[in-house]
Amino acid sequence: MKKELVIGILGAGRIGKVHTESITTGIPGVKIKTIADPFMDADTEAWGHAQGVEIMSKDPRAVFDDPEIQAVLICSSTDTHAEFTREAARKGKHIFCEKPLDLDVERIRETLKIVDEAGVKFQIGFNRRFDHNFRALRDAVEAGKVGDPHIIRITSRDPAPPNPAYIQVSGGIFMDMTIHDFDMTRFLSGSEVEEIYVQGAVLVDPEIGKAGDIDTAIITMKMANGALAVIDNSRKAAYGYDQRAEVFGSKGSVASSNDSASTAVLSNEEGVTAEKPLYFFLERYMGSFTTEMKEFITAIREDGPTPVGPVDALRPVQIALAARESLDAGKPVKITY
Amino acid sequence: MKKELVIGILGAGRIGKVHTESITTGIPGVKIKTIADPFMDADTEAWGHAQGVEIMSKDPRAVFDDPEIQAVLICSSTDTHAEFTREAARKGKHIFCEKPLDLDVERIRETLKIVDEAGVKFQIGFNRRFDHNFRALRDAVEAGKVGDPHIIRITSRDPAPPNPAYIQVSGGIFMDMTIHDFDMTRFLSGSEVEEIYVQGAVLVDPEIGKAGDIDTAIITMKMANGALAVIDNSRKAAYGYDQRAEVFGSKGSVASSNDSASTAVLSNEEGVTAEKPLYFFLERYMGSFTTEMKEFITAIREDGPTPVGPVDALRPVQIALAARESLDAGKPVKITY
Amino acid sequence: MKKELVIGILGAGRIGKVHTESITTGIPGVKIKTIADPFMDADTEAWGHAQGVEIMSKDPRAVFDDPEIQAVLICSSTDTHAEFTREAARKGKHIFCEKPLDLDVERIRETLKIVDEAGVKFQIGFNRRFDHNFRALRDAVEAGKVGDPHIIRITSRDPAPPNPAYIQVSGGIFMDMTIHDFDMTRFLSGSEVEEIYVQGAVLVDPEIGKAGDIDTAIITMKMANGALAVIDNSRKAAYGYDQRAEVFGSKGSVASSNDSASTAVLSNEEGVTAEKPLYFFLERYMGSFTTEMKEFITAIREDGPTPVGPVDALRPVQIALAARESLDAGKPVKITY
Amino acid sequence: MKKELVIGILGAGRIGKVHTESITTGIPGVKIKTIADPFMDADTEAWGHAQGVEIMSKDPRAVFDDPEIQAVLICSSTDTHAEFTREAARKGKHIFCEKPLDLDVERIRETLKIVDEAGVKFQIGFNRRFDHNFRALRDAVEAGKVGDPHIIRITSRDPAPPNPAYIQVSGGIFMDMTIHDFDMTRFLSGSEVEEIYVQGAVLVDPEIGKAGDIDTAIITMKMANGALAVIDNSRKAAYGYDQRAEVFGSKGSVASSNDSASTAVLSNEEGVTAEKPLYFFLERYMGSFTTEMKEFITAIREDGPTPVGPVDALRPVQIALAARESLDAGKPVKITY
Repeated sequence: MKKELVIGILGAGRIGKVHTESITTGIPGVKIKTIADPFMDADTEAWGHAQGVEIMSKDPRAVFDDPEIQAVLICSSTDTHAEFTREAARKGKHIFCEKPLDLDVERIRETLKIVDEAGVKFQIGFNRRFDHNFRALRDAVEAGKVGDPHIIRITSRDPAPPNPAYIQVSGGIFMDMTIHDFDMTRFLSGSEVEEIYVQGAVLVDPEIGKAGDIDTAIITMKMANGALAVIDNSRKAAYGYDQRAEVFGSKGSVASSNDSASTAVLSNEEGVTAEKPLYFFLERYMGSFTTEMKEFITAIREDGPTPVGPVDALRPVQIALAARESLDAGKPVKITY
Repeated sequence: MKKELVIGILGAGRIGKVHTESITTGIPGVKIKTIADPFMDADTEAWGHAQGVEIMSKDPRAVFDDPEIQAVLICSSTDTHAEFTREAARKGKHIFCEKPLDLDVERIRETLKIVDEAGVKFQIGFNRRFDHNFRALRDAVEAGKVGDPHIIRITSRDPAPPNPAYIQVSGGIFMDMTIHDFDMTRFLSGSEVEEIYVQGAVLVDPEIGKAGDIDTAIITMKMANGALAVIDNSRKAAYGYDQRAEVFGSKGSVASSNDSASTAVLSNEEGVTAEKPLYFFLERYMGSFTTEMKEFITAIREDGPTPVGPVDALRPVQIALAARESLDAGKPVKITY
Repeated sequence: MKKELVIGILGAGRIGKVHTESITTGIPGVKIKTIADPFMDADTEAWGHAQGVEIMSKDPRAVFDDPEIQAVLICSSTDTHAEFTREAARKGKHIFCEKPLDLDVERIRETLKIVDEAGVKFQIGFNRRFDHNFRALRDAVEAGKVGDPHIIRITSRDPAPPNPAYIQVSGGIFMDMTIHDFDMTRFLSGSEVEEIYVQGAVLVDPEIGKAGDIDTAIITMKMANGALAVIDNSRKAAYGYDQRAEVFGSKGSVASSNDSASTAVLSNEEGVTAEKPLYFFLERYMGSFTTEMKEFITAIREDGPTPVGPVDALRPVQIALAARESLDAGKPVKITY
Repeated sequence: MKKELVIGILGAGRIGKVHTESITTGIPGVKIKTIADPFMDADTEAWGHAQGVEIMSKDPRAVFDDPEIQAVLICSSTDTHAEFTREAARKGKHIFCEKPLDLDVERIRETLKIVDEAGVKFQIGFNRRFDHNFRALRDAVEAGKVGDPHIIRITSRDPAPPNPAYIQVSGGIFMDMTIHDFDMTRFLSGSEVEEIYVQGAVLVDPEIGKAGDIDTAIITMKMANGALAVIDNSRKAAYGYDQRAEVFGSKGSVASSNDSASTAVLSNEEGVTAEKPLYFFLERYMGSFTTEMKEFITAIREDGPTPVGPVDALRPVQIALAARESLDAGKPVKITY
């Protein structure tokens, strides 16, 4: 049996809890020693202890200053990601950070430089790369089953729009929602975005427009390997969470459809009705969070590269910023990295 | 029984034959008296007589100058469409014309003016509007089943690229292939294109590039009703003719997939394999050609509007020209009608 | 061009009309000279003439006694099939006869003997063998794609029960409905039924029970080649006409599902809904009727075997009788041919 | 937090391990104190301790004689099920027992009597009732969505045949494989089997025949509520584990299909290929094992009925015995309970 790996977690919100339970229920040989969250309450504390976590603290220093902790999961609010990453790097701890690392490219670069100099592992939380469907697409592409990629097509529609107030802090649709699709475009194509054009609209909720954002978008991209890519986004799909992709190439096409709760199909006078897609992202992507965490742990244990590394913390943010620029200018924007 | 309708056909090529057989095998009460084609040969003549056509001629005047002929089907080469349409109008004959009416907007306008003044029926050959799948989408949209349309998505990929020489005469991908998708965008959205942006590439055949055209494209459009639309095109899908569409709106989504020769599915050690999409457009769209012709005949008999009228002969050409302009300029183009 | 084949039709009911129109709209070089039906009325007469039929008569002798007529289609009521077949054979005319040839095995045998001695072609109307889906299954089986057949599974459910009065004349569910499935079992397995067991119930309409019949059945069979087979029947599927089959064998399985009017799928808050199966047998099986007739004509023209020959007129009736015997006895019945 | 429930497990084979891990990774508040297995080895001992199990023993008395243990999971070999159940009951421990409880009806009755007198909870391991697909079917039936059930159809095919030696101890196909389908028939129909008929064959492996068993079967049943039911079984489906069901009723039909590893579909020159069904029963049914265990724990904690109770330990064995009787006699067998 391998020596136990000791972990600390920053942030005990929804995603912090998801990662905690992925580890306690599915990854043997990992001890979560400490969880720190400034908004720690009694319920969360009780939950943490029930999960076997030793220390439930309000103070991030309880994580950073503990020499026994070898790796941290940064699951706190976005504005703390860069600072926490730097601090963890300085303390020589391996880092898993939720996306985005920051909304500012320069700050990301500087942060990644510190990480690089510290020589610690760094993984950014693009969990969808670990989803069974998207991974099957990527595997097919890598195995050459579709030949050279010509067209990448991603449909990504949320079941319900966020509170318009959230948009102010999230950085908008490109930063909080499409950023996953930008990374997926890179992942599926195996290439980088060279040029981007956004056609956007406010069709779901006028409040989103008032907040300066859009809620519906079609985004086209030209990839460095010559492929074209397109993402269609909506903040609200009446039938649930719509997460599909297709890679079309010289030898064929591979496409994934949505997951649902069962394969049951009802045939009656109304038609032939299957279940809706899984509604909630934690349901839809639960398996991906577990695999993501397992592969982070493996990278540490086997001293290998993390599956989603520093460059992946940078590129999608750059693309998201270019997307915003295109939307504002009403024309395509070239991206230089 | 209604009085027999007497028809003449210009052009005995592939599509002329399709319309002829649609009528002789499926539309009672219509007599095809004459087919004229400058390249008429013995085989075609024999075929025509076997179909019950009285006169097989090389001379279009055999159609135009015959006062018994009440309606013409213009199935000749594109460069003759406008002139034949004008001549038919002048002779007071109803007109079904294959698309495009012309590649030049002014010529189209003038031609339609002559048609209008003649007071004859005019239908343009966008047969896909009569396809069972696309019509089901349109019906769902019209019935309000998806609410307000937000995103129109069309996938249109040919099974094999044309001879690069053809591209010189066809007007290129937007005029000979995407023009159908432009019309479909209008049909499914119930609205007109206001702005268009093309991202194109030559990925299938470099000869197509040398001929000044592209073979792969993603085209985004903003519609007058606020909806966004996207078409993805390829000149070559290894698995056959790929013709799908989706209308996504405030209340849900309706999507069609491809037709195949049977519903048979083979499960074995390799996987679970269904048949490929129908490969050939005449196979895939045969039903639509028959319905198209039936509705043209009905419009004449009942003196009603044709289902695809003069404006539909103009708009898709205008969009195709704007698409080319966008491709050349590398930026979005607004369309004024 | 081949010499025209002259045909006479007995019976101008629904199925007689179907065959007539298959020929007039889809099979060149065949002339339907005469249609005879004792219930000929003015409408039917007008319809026939519009189809180009020369003689519309009430007297079957108008067909039998006409030396110009080379082949007959027997589309009259079941009780006339055997007598008309014999008369046609005696007159040296080729015969296409709707199923069943008769409800009595001895009468069938004698009739087939007369046909055999006359040396005319004989085809029985099991049109489903020509259906695109079932033919794809058969082709896969013949190509060895599923290996040795182990299990044949047929689902055959009608959209609505017949009038109980009809059951008295039809011979009951096994003779009027399952007979198609018995033939399909033979067709898909490439083998003959050796033993049969029926579990039946009256669940749809008690009147059917009062008429001495059942409306729901599961029928298991042991085939000569060792395969097992099962048919499930219902007189009423709320969602329409359910016609599916599967052949499972040593190397895999091939299965067909239902046809529907379009591939459109609606996703909304209620679920993901596709269209119901085609409801009406003439809609569902129209293609099969045309192919069936074409292959009959080809067999005559090329002097080859008919695709569904004399033995196929006998075996399914024998199976249907054994099915009834099993139902009555409540135990399996062996069939000797 | 509820007081911790203390559990002991008999048997540390494959299924014992599955239940252990279901509890340690997914059911909080349950402590597995002891696992006893006569074949306990060092690896298993290490695995158990890593799971947090206190005592890993070779002696079942370590479970039975420990007054702290409130409930037992009997995961040992079939021939010990009845005896262990009795002993647990005598010791006042709640019982979860893998199926079958025994192969002898009288022994089952006596055992259940002892359980009943002890007043402990008893659940039998028909895990498929907790599968997401089958539960969705059952929910639809209970909600009245298909009306009165008319036909229950179950396809249950294993990916590979067992070692013929196994058949000697397992009780044969009806006891080790179809027993699940017999229970599923009861579950989906909400009724009991009144009559059964088996048509069986040896088509997969002649050694199975030599061992006195069959490997391919079609089984028809008449249910007490009037519905008909059919199961088709094979010991070997080339494409994997085939587990489907359908309930057809007066208002429609609900059917489930197989689960696969992803929704990815590859379209190329060969066809349109989806993934095979999940191959291994532990993969396919993993979710069901967890839910099963959760509901057993809940029944204890809330002192409610177990979801699969004593009668469910008896009926499927009675049906399996009747199935064997039918196979041997070559005729249907009525079942009296």
